[in-house]
Amino acid sequence: MKQMFGIALAGLLAAGAGAVMANEGMWTMDHLPVKQMQQEYGFTPSAQWIDLVQHAALRLAEGCSGSFVSANGLVMTNHHCANSCLSQLSKGHEDYMSNGYVALKQEDEPKCPDVELNQLESITDVTAQVNAATAGKAGAERVKAEREVDSKLEQSCVNGDAKTWRCDVITLYNGGRYALYKYRRYQDVRLVFAPEQSIAFFGGDPDNFNFPRYDLDVTFFRAYVGGKPANTPKFFKFDPQGPKAGDMTFVVGNPGSTRRGLTWTELSALRDFQLVPVFGMLSELRGVLWQYARDGAQQAKESQELQFGIENSIKVYNGWLQTLADDNFVQHKQEQDAALRQWMAATAQRRAAYGDPWTELAHAQQRGQQLSTRYMMLERGIGLGQFGELFNDARILVRAAAERTKPDGERLPDFREANLPAVQQAVESNVPVYPRYEQTLLAWSLGRLRQSLGADDPTVHEVLGKQSPEQLAQQLVSGTKLADPAVRKQLWDGGEKAIQASSDPMIVLAREVDPESRKIRKAYEDEVKAPTDKANETIAKARFDRDGMSSYPDATFTQRLSYGKVVGWNENGAPVPPFTHFAGLYKRATGADPFKLPDSWIKAQSSLDMSTPMDFVTDNDIIGGNSGSPVIDRQGHAVGLIFDGNIHSLGGDFVYDGSNNRAVAVDTAALVAAVRKVYKLPRLADELIQGHL
Amino acid sequence: MKQMFGIALAGLLAAGAGAVMANEGMWTMDHLPVKQMQQEYGFTPSAQWIDLVQHAALRLAEGCSGSFVSANGLVMTNHHCANSCLSQLSKGHEDYMSNGYVALKQEDEPKCPDVELNQLESITDVTAQVNAATAGKAGAERVKAEREVDSKLEQSCVNGDAKTWRCDVITLYNGGRYALYKYRRYQDVRLVFAPEQSIAFFGGDPDNFNFPRYDLDVTFFRAYVGGKPANTPKFFKFDPQGPKAGDMTFVVGNPGSTRRGLTWTELSALRDFQLVPVFGMLSELRGVLWQYARDGAQQAKESQELQFGIENSIKVYNGWLQTLADDNFVQHKQEQDAALRQWMAATAQRRAAYGDPWTELAHAQQRGQQLSTRYMMLERGIGLGQFGELFNDARILVRAAAERTKPDGERLPDFREANLPAVQQAVESNVPVYPRYEQTLLAWSLGRLRQSLGADDPTVHEVLGKQSPEQLAQQLVSGTKLADPAVRKQLWDGGEKAIQASSDPMIVLAREVDPESRKIRKAYEDEVKAPTDKANETIAKARFDRDGMSSYPDATFTQRLSYGKVVGWNENGAPVPPFTHFAGLYKRATGADPFKLPDSWIKAQSSLDMSTPMDFVTDNDIIGGNSGSPVIDRQGHAVGLIFDGNIHSLGGDFVYDGSNNRAVAVDTAALVAAVRKVYKLPRLADELIQGHL
Repeated sequence: MKQMFGIALAGLLAAGAGAVMANEGMWTMDHLPVKQMQQEYGFTPSAQWIDLVQHAALRLAEGCSGSFVSANGLVMTNHHCANSCLSQLSKGHEDYMSNGYVALKQEDEPKCPDVELNQLESITDVTAQVNAATAGKAGAERVKAEREVDSKLEQSCVNGDAKTWRCDVITLYNGGRYALYKYRRYQDVRLVFAPEQSIAFFGGDPDNFNFPRYDLDVTFFRAYVGGKPANTPKFFKFDPQGPKAGDMTFVVGNPGSTRRGLTWTELSALRDFQLVPVFGMLSELRGVLWQYARDGAQQAKESQELQFGIENSIKVYNGWLQTLADDNFVQHKQEQDAALRQWMAATAQRRAAYGDPWTELAHAQQRGQQLSTRYMMLERGIGLGQFGELFNDARILVRAAAERTKPDGERLPDFREANLPAVQQAVESNVPVYPRYEQTLLAWSLGRLRQSLGADDPTVHEVLGKQSPEQLAQQLVSGTKLADPAVRKQLWDGGEKAIQASSDPMIVLAREVDPESRKIRKAYEDEVKAPTDKANETIAKARFDRDGMSSYPDATFTQRLSYGKVVGWNENGAPVPPFTHFAGLYKRATGADPFKLPDSWIKAQSSLDMSTPMDFVTDNDIIGGNSGSPVIDRQGHAVGLIFDGNIHSLGGDFVYDGSNNRAVAVDTAALVAAVRKVYKLPRLADELIQGHL
Repeated sequence: MKQMFGIALAGLLAAGAGAVMANEGMWTMDHLPVKQMQQEYGFTPSAQWIDLVQHAALRLAEGCSGSFVSANGLVMTNHHCANSCLSQLSKGHEDYMSNGYVALKQEDEPKCPDVELNQLESITDVTAQVNAATAGKAGAERVKAEREVDSKLEQSCVNGDAKTWRCDVITLYNGGRYALYKYRRYQDVRLVFAPEQSIAFFGGDPDNFNFPRYDLDVTFFRAYVGGKPANTPKFFKFDPQGPKAGDMTFVVGNPGSTRRGLTWTELSALRDFQLVPVFGMLSELRGVLWQYARDGAQQAKESQELQFGIENSIKVYNGWLQTLADDNFVQHKQEQDAALRQWMAATAQRRAAYGDPWTELAHAQQRGQQLSTRYMMLERGIGLGQFGELFNDARILVRAAAERTKPDGERLPDFREANLPAVQQAVESNVPVYPRYEQTLLAWSLGRLRQSLGADDPTVHEVLGKQSPEQLAQQLVSGTKLADPAVRKQLWDGGEKAIQASSDPMIVLAREVDPESRKIRKAYEDEVKAPTDKANETIAKARFDRDGMSSYPDATFTQRLSYGKVVGWNENGAPVPPFTHFAGLYKRATGADPFKLPDSWIKAQSSLDMSTPMDFVTDNDIIGGNSGSPVIDRQGHAVGLIFDGNIHSLGGDFVYDGSNNRAVAVDTAALVAAVRKVYKLPRLADELIQGHL
């Protein structure tokens, strides 16, 4: 449930939806539902508790969550959040993703090429500044003004030290509020321990988003500063017992995106013109990867990370499409919209204050529908190899070179000074490039380009010329030198001059398509995003005016706390108990993938207590991006590690249903037993229990 | 645009939708829109004209249309309708599908293993008989009664000679009318001529459903009787000039299925719970096949027929989903439903006569939603290898053996005596089986089974045991002997005893899953189809009562005539002219697949008149299944050969829009020029022009 391939278009997020249910909500740390928690659980967090939670919780910039679990920078996250690192560190015959990795001593902890951790330092309300900058502006003017004010705020926050700090202006409540998030940035992140993929993801795609479940989906990293383990006094101490049924639990992490505040106008357009086409595209790519991986172990290794991500996304899309096809949900949404719309038009004063954002919204969606295929193919790069490495690197190099010549406030947001360290880290990282795999992804992608835009489209003509997608892919992959990180570094350092002088065919392609890609992006931003944002800001304002700020903002891949308890649910009338145990794991094993246990677990069976809880579920309100989040208790101790939601949690993107929406976590009792008895790592086990090296 | 993979569930078809637009309609030959044709075109068909059209037009039982074009059994249809035959006849290094086939003399015409032609002999109204049999019955009782009466009618029609006659009871106007269609059956169908795939399907998937277009999508068969060319005095004489812009045109063929009469209740369920999931599944399989074919020429050959079919289906699904997401269409549908519902409830008499079929319909759809995944996986066989040959053969053998022991009226309709010859022909045909390809399809399919029903489903357990889909597929494909037609014939002839005694692993699997498959089929038929049929019958009756029988029934893969004219349309404000010419073909060629011309056309270029029309469009109302239909003129002469519709025609499944819905055809002028000058076949060209050998 990592946050990937969300084609949610930034800025289309809207405000929370009025009355909040028990346990519902992904709350910002500066606006916790103190009253509800006290009423429902008799718990009120202290200032100290809040401070601990805010600083011990982490964001993985690539799309996950994590936490410090020792004073020496030890980080707990999911195995599936470490996929890139494990793939990238595997060289030659090594395959850390499949076989796991163990650092027996500190010197064995290798640096992950492109993991970045973010620790939240502060949240500052900047609503007034943003509103002042965009007041009275629309379309391209509004886009420009917003970029400028965001850049100014971020730059002054980073204050010249982008290596240490990262600052992002975040739109909350769909424009009802803007906040400046300041993070401490950790880019030296090393690998401490990862189990085998077959236990981390036991049950594979068939069990993904299901429960009962038996996964040890964990990886431990360590943050380093100045070449030494970071000093991290604020961390979650491990509770080796794990939680009990009914215990109050908190999840702190970075839910990626929810769309609970969107209007039905936006949701129906989302379903029909984004989710359905992308669902088809991901399904097709899934088939390609499945067949590619059947060619052998090497091919399986090359493709497994993407395959996992795609399979995960397809389940997510299925869940979304089901919710958006649910008659009750649709009706409820339509009624909510109608009620607010009516309220906004009920007095002359309100009509004057709000105008008619609903019609604007509908027009913007129609325009979005016209632009979306081209936008996805060119600017999101789906028709240009976006799922591979080489074209992406080329595009980033081409774009970064051009953007870095501009004043910060005029750049595309990705290339603002505040973001450049992460971009540079990614583009220069030592990611292995597999030519046959790259060619496969690129040939597929170029085929989609021609198919989606038509053989007569001028951009398609420009890209393909008289070649087939296969021929061009072959030529590009065999001709480019971008697989070499040194070449990429040279091009990065050489800037615009080096890019313009380059005859590398992938750079040439990226250069060629850039004007058209920027054009469709601009059209999309000016004609779809800006009017949508503007309309949503007005709708959010009306909602605040009617309801007050009683709710939580839609998720934005920023730190949120959810509260709840350990509890099962009823499936087709039968209760699903909240815990699984080691005994069940061994019972479920078949010897055949994805139910094949690794040797380590087969050998350790007799030494393990079969009644040890393995995974558990809670009714905490989470969503993709929360992967790797710690589950903590009232004392602020770690009792679990979120790695999934059940199938009903997928609808949580649009609405929280506490009766069956469940978060799925690894029990800390299982983690401690596994580290000590299966992997025989007393040093790591002791660090977890004692809280320091 | 062959009729394939339609997951339209039989019997869910409803009546036409009130007022009919100019050129709209797929009319039955016994109920032609004589008045409209006269008013709009000043044309009234004579009895002789109708008789000619009815008998010269043909149905290809597998899912296409065709026509006699000489008195000696020469049949014109599409290249893509001959895919199976071309693949099946290709042995060793031959590849007739890619390279084409030319029979220089009559002895060179090889028999297609499983092509069956149907020539419509008569249509008999049997509404009274069917209504009498099902009166007052519901659920399982209704299913049983309908089967019995259908069987009785068909058997008496065939009158013991199922080799010569084929009779089907067809539901028209969604139960408003039932008709018995009697066909003459031709099972000895031989291959005369097919061009190369690269000219038949020039432009490939990118150009499919698009125009301008440059395809020579033709195959000529010849029907044989008693080992000699059939005597077919009723045929369409070739007009070697083709039509002119504005000319009145008729298309006679077998449109497969439309759903213009369905209620919105059914259409929204169709979209969300059938089309979207199947779209995802087809997309995934497309990816598998694409990657499979990249392994080499042999793999490309093995998979190309299915790949073409899947790509075609995906475009169709895209078109459908777009129409069903069109706000105007949805609103129009909902208003139509509401108006009829209101009319039905407006008087006490009507309320008593009709009851409330609308609520029944909604309940049946909900039940369908619950059952659909299991139904698709098991009974439609999508989770059991339905896209390959071996499991399908095993299932047919297992089912046929059991069904043939029952009285005709109690059998599953596919296995009634009237249908057995076609079933037997298919199961005993000499279709090449490629083990690696079969294993790929089966492994993929079994993976879908586990994924869709869950690893804990008892049927999944029974099928897979402790094996992975890949292991089981490998074991089944390497262990079965069903690739050998002689083995299949033995099992067919041996009947129930041979099936029960067989230890062939594929037969064992088919035997094992049969009870569960039949169970879900029965549940689906009794709880979804029967109440849907019953409700629709009532709604159809009300519609007749209100509007009279002024409209045409939804398409049912039976003979229909549509009328219209040669005319282009406007695309994004720019006119699309109705004709393309040879000159455009040569201009569009790139040398790279799918825009690569075959050598024959490159060599012939200088001998061809570049101004010869190649393809053209008309506003005839057609749909998938019409592939291979002749375009004829007022004189009953062939002027073209339907092979596609434009992209807007896809919405025609739900509504006809004459402003942009276009049929795409090969011009007879191009056909004659190609046969004579490119392929240098004076004998065939003369037969086309003279109308006889």
